[in-house]
Amino acid sequence: MQAVSENKCFGGVQGVYTHASDVCGCDMTFGLFLPAEAADGPVPVLWYLSGLTCTHENAMTKAGAQQWAAEQGIALVFPDTSPRGEGIADDDSYNLGTGAGFYVNATQDPWAANYRMWDYVAEELPRLLVNNVAIDEDRQAICGHSMGGHGALTIAMAYPGRFASVSALAPITHPSTSDWAKKPIHAYLGEGNVDWTRHDACLSLRANGFAGPMLIDQGTKDPFIDSLMPEALAAAITETRHPGTLRMQAGYDHSYFFVSSFIEDHVAFHAEALYA
Amino acid sequence: MQAVSENKCFGGVQGVYTHASDVCGCDMTFGLFLPAEAADGPVPVLWYLSGLTCTHENAMTKAGAQQWAAEQGIALVFPDTSPRGEGIADDDSYNLGTGAGFYVNATQDPWAANYRMWDYVAEELPRLLVNNVAIDEDRQAICGHSMGGHGALTIAMAYPGRFASVSALAPITHPSTSDWAKKPIHAYLGEGNVDWTRHDACLSLRANGFAGPMLIDQGTKDPFIDSLMPEALAAAITETRHPGTLRMQAGYDHSYFFVSSFIEDHVAFHAEALYA
Repeated sequence: MQAVSENKCFGGVQGVYTHASDVCGCDMTFGLFLPAEAADGPVPVLWYLSGLTCTHENAMTKAGAQQWAAEQGIALVFPDTSPRGEGIADDDSYNLGTGAGFYVNATQDPWAANYRMWDYVAEELPRLLVNNVAIDEDRQAICGHSMGGHGALTIAMAYPGRFASVSALAPITHPSTSDWAKKPIHAYLGEGNVDWTRHDACLSLRANGFAGPMLIDQGTKDPFIDSLMPEALAAAITETRHPGTLRMQAGYDHSYFFVSSFIEDHVAFHAEALYA
Repeated sequence: MQAVSENKCFGGVQGVYTHASDVCGCDMTFGLFLPAEAADGPVPVLWYLSGLTCTHENAMTKAGAQQWAAEQGIALVFPDTSPRGEGIADDDSYNLGTGAGFYVNATQDPWAANYRMWDYVAEELPRLLVNNVAIDEDRQAICGHSMGGHGALTIAMAYPGRFASVSALAPITHPSTSDWAKKPIHAYLGEGNVDWTRHDACLSLRANGFAGPMLIDQGTKDPFIDSLMPEALAAAITETRHPGTLRMQAGYDHSYFFVSSFIEDHVAFHAEALYA
């Protein structure tokens, strides 16, 4: 991994790095915040998966998570949301192709060659980081926003024991029944071939459960709320009697102004699980 | 109102009082905590409605709310859960008759003569208190446990503008479809005569809404959870896009050990609304 930039930030370092990704078949860029404590040894890590149209950079610059991660001595990882660059398939839609990997391993042309964001985020990038920086493989947590909330929830449930806790801000909760998210996932995986118990947080929670706490925030004025379907995740959490908190936040929308308003709570929530 | 007892408590006074209730046609007893600030003038008030089998005393002695109410300068009222005493109708069931008023005005014999807990809690007792003690009629909030959660939610929604906020611990959420709560309400009001948009929190929220925040806690190991139906309230909150927080609390049951574990959060939640 090669440093693109490193900036001191709340006593630690906010870095941006690139590396050649075998999984995605292209160079990939990610953000990594290491708190001061990382100088002395491995620290717990919180993964932050971003939403549609985002790169590694949006949350890193706009979510305001570093202040709270520094207080808690926790690292933050901000992966990109898709492969990108010359020769990588794309589409005019904002919810397919570049910036819209949906955290699946595509099997359909023209996506299969590079769009393998599930394996990238859940396999390749963790290995790279554990081998190269001071993060503690045994103390991981994961969160995400919108499409990244979908990724965080589905990946957390697919890897029992890996993540101490999971949280999401305005997540896509139930893509198997929401056209908005179903269409791109069908494009990547083929309609009729999708294992929805793996790629739909509501179905995964009902099928697999999750052995840890869950925190969900959803703005009531989110223009995408009908497609995000917080009611479906509320039903899955309550009907499975899962330890989870769902907060409908009055007047908030889908933006980073919403994310930054509640990120302190999310970092504190994960810190409690990571240091338990 | 006559004092039965008054004890200094967290710098204020925890009192127990009786009064002749016109609404219930018998003497009624209630607990009232006044913080030190009440000596200087009217203070905000948080109503606490109790659950099945409780008197005015259970929450007053076991919920641990006074510490947090004292910190916030807020009064607490602990009404009884039914009329009681000689000559008052009763039943062998723990969920009908004494200790089980369900916060309705009974219209059916033998209950109609005395079981008018809706009017008692929402009309007569507030008038008595506003006229006799230093509570501020314009700054009220309401919470409750189990059957009292049902009371708190339904009364809050029926009196728009009166309560700044509402919360509940393990509330009966949807009695119109839960046999456990439907049976006694049918006994009081007559099957077929119940205005469920008034007496079912889920239906009331969908019909009337509530102009304030809502906090719900539910233990995942609550033995009554299937009858309490947190999933129904989760659906009503999320589908109406209501500002509300629902927390599924891992491992907690239905007892006052559960209530006392989270009452600090509830008092703080109401304080924020009362002092907004």
